[in-house]
Amino acid sequence: MNVTVRGRTRHFRTVTFNPARNQVLLIEQRLLPHQFKIVATKNFQETAAAIRDMVVRGAGAIGATAAYGLVQGARAFRGDDPDEFIRHLESVYRALRWTRPTAVDLANALHKVIVEMGDAKTVAQMQSLALATAGKFADDNVAQCRAIGRYGAKLIRNGMKILTHCNAGWLAFVDVGTATAPMYAAQAQGKKFHVFCDETRPRSQGATLTAWELAQQKISHQIIADNAAGHLMQRGEIDLVIVGSDRTLGRTGEVANKIGTYTKAVLANRHGIPFYVAIPLSTIDWRLKSGGEIPIEERHESEVLGAWGTPANSKFKIKNSRLKYVRVANPTSGARNPGFDVTPAALITGIITPAGIFRPRELWKRRRELGFAD
Amino acid sequence: MNVTVRGRTRHFRTVTFNPARNQVLLIEQRLLPHQFKIVATKNFQETAAAIRDMVVRGAGAIGATAAYGLVQGARAFRGDDPDEFIRHLESVYRALRWTRPTAVDLANALHKVIVEMGDAKTVAQMQSLALATAGKFADDNVAQCRAIGRYGAKLIRNGMKILTHCNAGWLAFVDVGTATAPMYAAQAQGKKFHVFCDETRPRSQGATLTAWELAQQKISHQIIADNAAGHLMQRGEIDLVIVGSDRTLGRTGEVANKIGTYTKAVLANRHGIPFYVAIPLSTIDWRLKSGGEIPIEERHESEVLGAWGTPANSKFKIKNSRLKYVRVANPTSGARNPGFDVTPAALITGIITPAGIFRPRELWKRRRELGFAD
Repeated sequence: MNVTVRGRTRHFRTVTFNPARNQVLLIEQRLLPHQFKIVATKNFQETAAAIRDMVVRGAGAIGATAAYGLVQGARAFRGDDPDEFIRHLESVYRALRWTRPTAVDLANALHKVIVEMGDAKTVAQMQSLALATAGKFADDNVAQCRAIGRYGAKLIRNGMKILTHCNAGWLAFVDVGTATAPMYAAQAQGKKFHVFCDETRPRSQGATLTAWELAQQKISHQIIADNAAGHLMQRGEIDLVIVGSDRTLGRTGEVANKIGTYTKAVLANRHGIPFYVAIPLSTIDWRLKSGGEIPIEERHESEVLGAWGTPANSKFKIKNSRLKYVRVANPTSGARNPGFDVTPAALITGIITPAGIFRPRELWKRRRELGFAD
Repeated sequence: MNVTVRGRTRHFRTVTFNPARNQVLLIEQRLLPHQFKIVATKNFQETAAAIRDMVVRGAGAIGATAAYGLVQGARAFRGDDPDEFIRHLESVYRALRWTRPTAVDLANALHKVIVEMGDAKTVAQMQSLALATAGKFADDNVAQCRAIGRYGAKLIRNGMKILTHCNAGWLAFVDVGTATAPMYAAQAQGKKFHVFCDETRPRSQGATLTAWELAQQKISHQIIADNAAGHLMQRGEIDLVIVGSDRTLGRTGEVANKIGTYTKAVLANRHGIPFYVAIPLSTIDWRLKSGGEIPIEERHESEVLGAWGTPANSKFKIKNSRLKYVRVANPTSGARNPGFDVTPAALITGIITPAGIFRPRELWKRRRELGFAD
């Protein structure tokens, strides 16, 4: 999407590849929203470290980064012995695969590149097929997000107020994003609307990443405390909710997403406000039979007990853009920190997929067109 | 309640008066939970400043502080001309009355002291009546909280997990508190239970004040992000919710309280979890006919856009206890910040008052015993 740096507006993807220099270019997401910086990794080890250290985060973005990392490693090989090349490739794969063990997209992306390379005979052919496949993988991610945008934009009418939770924006994918895709598409159609970004404690991705995205795209928006959405719904100030998903159960339509999503779905349901979940095909889990089976990650309590921000003076003006952690909570208290929750199908109006908008319980019936391979 | 400072445990009220020195003694609440300090105001002007600058906060605590401030001003008068004394008293009243314009308890407390002084003839008699009345006002506040505790403790059974929101603890009153009163009483009865403190963004009173109170009283507790309560309820980990109230409508049973209270009531209702509101009599509003008439204060956006905390190092260990503000959110985004919300009677299991526990719609029928004077 467009980013304006020092008055100049340019288009960026979260992840791209420079074949001439054999470098992966990444938006350094740990500095956002306080600094915008592109980092170039010089070799696959640096790319693996960038994934592990969360320079890049978000399912789709990680997948594309891993694919390009594999390409980078493959192209760094000097020689023409295919067996040696395969051994080299195995070490590249291992370095990338275990950077984020639970990320399904990452494994899928690496798998895809390796399978495609199987068609080639020479090292040079394999290297070139790897590059083409990784590029296709990234482009496909963008195309899926654009399709989500096309379907989802129909839900947005002029003057609407839309609530979103956490960041399912373009920073989490290669471009466009999922929950944000309908907003960007509606904006391109000339529609005017306003977005409330849930702060999304404890990690504040709504206040930092989603708000930054919307500000860059000049979409009218305000951040709210996670506590405020219920009140705004009660006063008729929210017309539509769109969120993303970390895992959607194809068999039941249940949606696992950032902690707090379930609460917003309950509130929307009470107030008769449509609640939509935007997902790429890769996040559909066709295997699990119940949301209760989804493991809920319990994260470090320091996230709840404090906050990351940039020091500001007494007038709340930012003094410098270096991120600091402050302890907010009572020093002798601990915290519980579940990272995700599960929203039942009955609370979800529709799932916006690249193949259309479906009721959550329709997913299983539509599994063929949604890419289920049994 | 008990506070342990450097290994020594002593009993404190949030507000007390030292007649020998004519000083009001206050817990400096702006430093909590990071520092515990008692400040003594030397004259009524300093007491007024302490209320204005929020050294002391919370309805009951402010009321008692204002009453003692009036006493302090009255007792500083040298002379025996009643007319001169009354003129002096008027200036003391004005200094105290407008420190927190919307605080109903503050106006009520000052009114009570002045009315009682009307029975006296000499300056000395008036001074001594003022002192006695302010003391009675503070003691009555404590007695009401204790009565809330006696009734509310019956709701708490061994092994329960209780959710509370914001701080309706002893720091907001003279002692004991309202939402916390049942917990302290149940603890005294030997019951074991666990409390989840909602962080309560944007001002984090749950993470700071309530967690500090419970830690001091050695009550088992954990802080959670405001987003997490829905998930915990879904997994059966919350048995009871007790919150306070800033204003309860005597005619309808609607409850205005800290932003986010309504959301917790909706969630509790969905999961069949009892939701109780603990209130002193002074917060019942017998006049308004609908919750929609309650003005909802829109607070400064800096509260949502950042956080106050103490700097910590990379291991999340506190480096020093001076509070600093950090900007968390995207620097080019703004925020909405409603301070309160209104919970309808249908979502409230019961109102715990000093006169017993009532269904919210029973309040009007019981108005005589609840102190309504028409």
